[in-house]
Amino acid sequence: MASLQDISLSATINILSAFAFLVAFAMFRLQPMNDRVYFPKWYLKGIRGSPTRSGLLVSKFVNLDFRTYIRFLNWMPAALRMPEPELIDHAGFDSAVYIRIYLLGLKIIVPVTILSLVVLVPVNWTGKTLEKVKDLAFSDIDKLSISNIPVGSERFLAHIVMSYVFSFWTCYVLYKEYKTVATMRLRFLASERRRPDQFSVLVRNVPPDPDESVSEHIEHFFCVNHPDHYLTHQVVYNANNLANIVAKKKKLQNWHVYYQNKYERNPTRKPTTKTGFMGLWGNRVDAIDYYDAEIAKLTEEEEAERARVTSDVKAVVPAAFVSFKTRWAAAVCAQTQQSSNPTIWLTEWAPEPRDVYWENLAIPYVELSIRRLLMSVGLFFLIFFFMIPIAFVQSLANIEGIEKVLPFLKPIIEKKAVKSLIQGFLPGLALKIFLVLLPNILMLMSKIEGYTSLSFLDRRSAAKYYLFILVNVFLGSIVTGTAFQQLQKFIDQPSTEFTKTVGSTIPMKATFFITYIMVDGWSGIAAEILRLVPLVMFHLKNTFLVKTEQDREQAMDPGSLNFATSEPRIQFYFMLGHVYSVVTPILLPFIVVFFAFSFVVFRHQIINVYNQQYESGAAFWPDVHRRIETGLIISQLLWMGLLSTRGADKSTLVLIAQPVLTIWFHFFCKGRFESAFVKFPLQDAMVKDTLERATEPNLNLKVYLQDAYIHPVFKGGEIERPTVVNEEENNPLVPTKRTSRRNSGRYSPDASF
Amino acid sequence: MASLQDISLSATINILSAFAFLVAFAMFRLQPMNDRVYFPKWYLKGIRGSPTRSGLLVSKFVNLDFRTYIRFLNWMPAALRMPEPELIDHAGFDSAVYIRIYLLGLKIIVPVTILSLVVLVPVNWTGKTLEKVKDLAFSDIDKLSISNIPVGSERFLAHIVMSYVFSFWTCYVLYKEYKTVATMRLRFLASERRRPDQFSVLVRNVPPDPDESVSEHIEHFFCVNHPDHYLTHQVVYNANNLANIVAKKKKLQNWHVYYQNKYERNPTRKPTTKTGFMGLWGNRVDAIDYYDAEIAKLTEEEEAERARVTSDVKAVVPAAFVSFKTRWAAAVCAQTQQSSNPTIWLTEWAPEPRDVYWENLAIPYVELSIRRLLMSVGLFFLIFFFMIPIAFVQSLANIEGIEKVLPFLKPIIEKKAVKSLIQGFLPGLALKIFLVLLPNILMLMSKIEGYTSLSFLDRRSAAKYYLFILVNVFLGSIVTGTAFQQLQKFIDQPSTEFTKTVGSTIPMKATFFITYIMVDGWSGIAAEILRLVPLVMFHLKNTFLVKTEQDREQAMDPGSLNFATSEPRIQFYFMLGHVYSVVTPILLPFIVVFFAFSFVVFRHQIINVYNQQYESGAAFWPDVHRRIETGLIISQLLWMGLLSTRGADKSTLVLIAQPVLTIWFHFFCKGRFESAFVKFPLQDAMVKDTLERATEPNLNLKVYLQDAYIHPVFKGGEIERPTVVNEEENNPLVPTKRTSRRNSGRYSPDASF
Repeated sequence: MASLQDISLSATINILSAFAFLVAFAMFRLQPMNDRVYFPKWYLKGIRGSPTRSGLLVSKFVNLDFRTYIRFLNWMPAALRMPEPELIDHAGFDSAVYIRIYLLGLKIIVPVTILSLVVLVPVNWTGKTLEKVKDLAFSDIDKLSISNIPVGSERFLAHIVMSYVFSFWTCYVLYKEYKTVATMRLRFLASERRRPDQFSVLVRNVPPDPDESVSEHIEHFFCVNHPDHYLTHQVVYNANNLANIVAKKKKLQNWHVYYQNKYERNPTRKPTTKTGFMGLWGNRVDAIDYYDAEIAKLTEEEEAERARVTSDVKAVVPAAFVSFKTRWAAAVCAQTQQSSNPTIWLTEWAPEPRDVYWENLAIPYVELSIRRLLMSVGLFFLIFFFMIPIAFVQSLANIEGIEKVLPFLKPIIEKKAVKSLIQGFLPGLALKIFLVLLPNILMLMSKIEGYTSLSFLDRRSAAKYYLFILVNVFLGSIVTGTAFQQLQKFIDQPSTEFTKTVGSTIPMKATFFITYIMVDGWSGIAAEILRLVPLVMFHLKNTFLVKTEQDREQAMDPGSLNFATSEPRIQFYFMLGHVYSVVTPILLPFIVVFFAFSFVVFRHQIINVYNQQYESGAAFWPDVHRRIETGLIISQLLWMGLLSTRGADKSTLVLIAQPVLTIWFHFFCKGRFESAFVKFPLQDAMVKDTLERATEPNLNLKVYLQDAYIHPVFKGGEIERPTVVNEEENNPLVPTKRTSRRNSGRYSPDASF
Repeated sequence: MASLQDISLSATINILSAFAFLVAFAMFRLQPMNDRVYFPKWYLKGIRGSPTRSGLLVSKFVNLDFRTYIRFLNWMPAALRMPEPELIDHAGFDSAVYIRIYLLGLKIIVPVTILSLVVLVPVNWTGKTLEKVKDLAFSDIDKLSISNIPVGSERFLAHIVMSYVFSFWTCYVLYKEYKTVATMRLRFLASERRRPDQFSVLVRNVPPDPDESVSEHIEHFFCVNHPDHYLTHQVVYNANNLANIVAKKKKLQNWHVYYQNKYERNPTRKPTTKTGFMGLWGNRVDAIDYYDAEIAKLTEEEEAERARVTSDVKAVVPAAFVSFKTRWAAAVCAQTQQSSNPTIWLTEWAPEPRDVYWENLAIPYVELSIRRLLMSVGLFFLIFFFMIPIAFVQSLANIEGIEKVLPFLKPIIEKKAVKSLIQGFLPGLALKIFLVLLPNILMLMSKIEGYTSLSFLDRRSAAKYYLFILVNVFLGSIVTGTAFQQLQKFIDQPSTEFTKTVGSTIPMKATFFITYIMVDGWSGIAAEILRLVPLVMFHLKNTFLVKTEQDREQAMDPGSLNFATSEPRIQFYFMLGHVYSVVTPILLPFIVVFFAFSFVVFRHQIINVYNQQYESGAAFWPDVHRRIETGLIISQLLWMGLLSTRGADKSTLVLIAQPVLTIWFHFFCKGRFESAFVKFPLQDAMVKDTLERATEPNLNLKVYLQDAYIHPVFKGGEIERPTVVNEEENNPLVPTKRTSRRNSGRYSPDASF
């Protein structure tokens, strides 16, 4: 157990490093040359122009106005100043609601912290158990925790009452917040401008018909079954191959630009490259000519593929976006079952055009079902057995292992410098690489599961990541041993024993988690605002690839809120808060600092940096709500386990109502609010329809909708469509061209460099 | 452990008693005076007339044609002869599908039995473990079971393979059957004649409006939000009080008839009665005059109440049946969300008029949510702690207890006859009364939970009863001790330990369950066909109450399939079959006999006796399917537990895929078929609408629907409505008057006598 001194030291280090990040950020963001890294959102909005255009040469790159440095924290009040309605308008509803999670954390934890410090800390402090036990090492933190209460003491009554108060308060705040977010969402949806997805429904699993093409079949089906409402539909082309070619071409073009820039700066020497893998071997040729030829080749290929996709009947997948004359009809079609066979003619709300995940639109029911089974089993193994391959790699990666497998490397390895590098670096490396790759692995699994929109993929990945964190970070930190050993323990022990074991270990781990919060929470968030990777990437691109102003805009990487990884991490702090609220109250202020600091940082980021990939209207809120409740229930069970080891066996029974009531609360809220996030009420649809009919009686909806749902690879390509297509994206502040490129980037990750 | 001899003895006794019931049934059913007890269905259909009308006086009551007695089992082939489509037409779709559960049992268990007897019994028989163990008592049945295999033997491979084969076969048959039933249901719904519920939607939680009445508010809301489709609506009156008065009046009328009959048979003496409770004390008055006056008083009261209900605004509950112009529009309204607040304007498919449970139509969301929480907690306590009050009553009901509490009774109790009665009878009585009342308690709990149709109430009660049987009969028989003690064990042991304990006890309980099957299954079913209680009741009523032919028809009690109690009992046999298929194959033939015998008996009953209370279109099938799967999964887990105690610890891991795959199979089937039972596809609705528009272009639907959903107490009363109202009930074979009385009987249980 760490003493108060250790904690203070750790706190000092972390506060200093967080401070260093903040100072660095304050310095960097004031340099004009970094302007596009720290304020890309404003560039995308078209409000901010390049500061490098005018003035002294030096002041193009470095800020010489020293007064601005003095107020290096003035971004904080600026971040808090923008009112929420404006924030929704500026950064999108998803982002605005996302930062409300941090606010929710403050709303829940701050009163709990105050109450806990005022009531429980004195009760614990005067418990005087640890002073009597002479041979046990204990720290001052433990004196403030429940460990200081003698076994079987009546003082536990205070903790039991407080745990009820805390649970009640959490549920109350959760309820209020769910209500607020649901109301906000409905207001947001009601105030939205006309968008194609309001009129459209995604139809999947269109059954094959021997006499008709997919398109004809869809038209006939909906003409018959929604006779007064059907308007038009767009079939989906399987353009995955085409998208690959386009992405490849883009990459070659980047290299082309790079060599051309190189040549222009130093016209004396023509740049050359090798034709083999990554330019490492093969014949040496003139680089610009080589890439010219390669690009021409790919362009031809692209033409052929484009022609094939648009003409070949087989390139049409059995899915389509069907549009209706009114929002009412679309709402009806999305919520009803079409055919007596519930695995064909599946209808659901169409995602926004930019939110569609095109690859997954054509998976038949049985395959989907099997994929989900495999991914569930896969997730189980990933969570509980991920240490096995890593341990295997680690065992290979030690000196003896490498020498055994690759004996010819022996002379090199035996050199001292190499040896110490391998010994010190390799074992940890495998785990680090795995943890960095984990979100991508989880996203890949979600994609295999066959969800059809990016927003849903993000939400599913978040659920998986939450489970991983819960088992491997939370329980893994409390119980020693790998997740698999925990699982075995869980199976072999009585079910109450597990909560007892875990529960009784909790007070001892408080100092560990305090350090964790400071490292991961405080310094991590401070690092987030510095954006070191995008900063470096931007300057690399800027140096080698940028020729025109447009290129520079493209080199900007605003990034976006990564819901799939950051939300589960917030949940982890919620859980820590719930678990330690009665056990070690002194941990709570650290969490409060995390929530407050994160709130300011992310508010700043969504205002100035992040560019939203899609707008789901905060469809993630039910997930957030449910996971906070899950954390609460877990903490209640562990608290029961802890208490039953402290000679308060009977009073444990008093606590059993807590999880029961929380579970009931979950169902209550689900019934009360969830449908606001998954359905679209007919009443609201009718109001919008009526209003539109009155204000725009001559609107030609068919023209408006006809090309709304087109694979991004066709956009801006040969089959250039009128840009009226997509009003949301046709936002006057955002040039359409860039928008569509941004989209395609998502589906065809361009390695760029 | 019972030996083969004990089993044979028990079998003989049970077969004889079953045989006796069958012979008694064969005798009774041939007597003309019992005709209305054993063939009420045909009377209700109007096909069979009273046989007592003509011929000799004796032959009116007793069958003198002795040839008919010889073929006393000829009802069996007769019961099997009716083809299924005719059966659906005759007895209703629910009943026809219900007996398919028994058929499903045969389809699953018969091949399993054969395979098990052919493969596993020889493997077990030659295991020769039990012969070596000298000091252990064992029976021949155990030699045929898995107990005869030595610990750690390789022979277990046969059992493991077989368990996979059985699980696979079960799932295959379940899948086929689900598909068949779903197809049958869709065909049934498509072929149905026009019925009010096809066009109607039940709207609940209509929000209060300060300016409009409930009726106006509903009309405006649906006129706005379903403008082209809304047709009409009927508000629901809170007529519970009126229904009570009507029921009370009915009862008094019965007494009136009874005394009048008495007077007519013996005109010398005017019958008298006492005015106090149950005619036991109070003033002695002339009975006929007294009841005349009482009835007149109640008639007035009824008039007043009727007037109040139809005129008072407060008598209208915030719920209504809203009807649409087409089936398509009704399907749309039932499947969509109307308002942005998901707890108001709730729409769901309207149940059939006779299926509506009127009392529950007006429960607000929060109250409903709290009711369900309380009932869940209540069910938990009922299942695990029901023994506590019973044990308390039993402790009171012993001699010493009674003497202590009521010392003045001492002289009476101490008499030998009374004493032995109390000692022998009372302790068991409390439990027996509880078990008889249990289905009613569960139904009451379901009613409190607030479901709005009788069919749904039945299904919910069945779910509760299944849980009770699973915990208290199945597990209770295997593990000693009360359910609460099991629960404690389950909590205090490792989770695997519980399945091990239970699993290892299973082989020893085989003989117990064989006896149970014979008593409860064989003799119980044979008793079912004899209908002793309705037989006695009919003759009592016939003697004292019947004056006219119409009275006699009313005295008939056809009864109906009691889904809530009989389906969970079938599930119990399914579970026994799954559990013992690999463990003690010799038990399986007993289950086969149960399924086959029940199939014949219930087919006979639904053809000749039962009168359906409602038609849900086999909406219960998903429940049946799910519970069979649950039983299968439980059996797989117990089988793993059993195997792990037999030194085959490693091979237990091979079995873990079984429950995982079965759970996956559950979700697969759910996605594939369930919506056929809960939704009505728009395509089918459109087909029916189009057909109707073509065949009956001049149909006045508004007139047809206007009084379809009227509280049964208003039917045939002062506010007599045109009988066109309800075509299904207006079946030419069934006199309308009786039908409506049958309905009201359900809501106001008339004690009659």
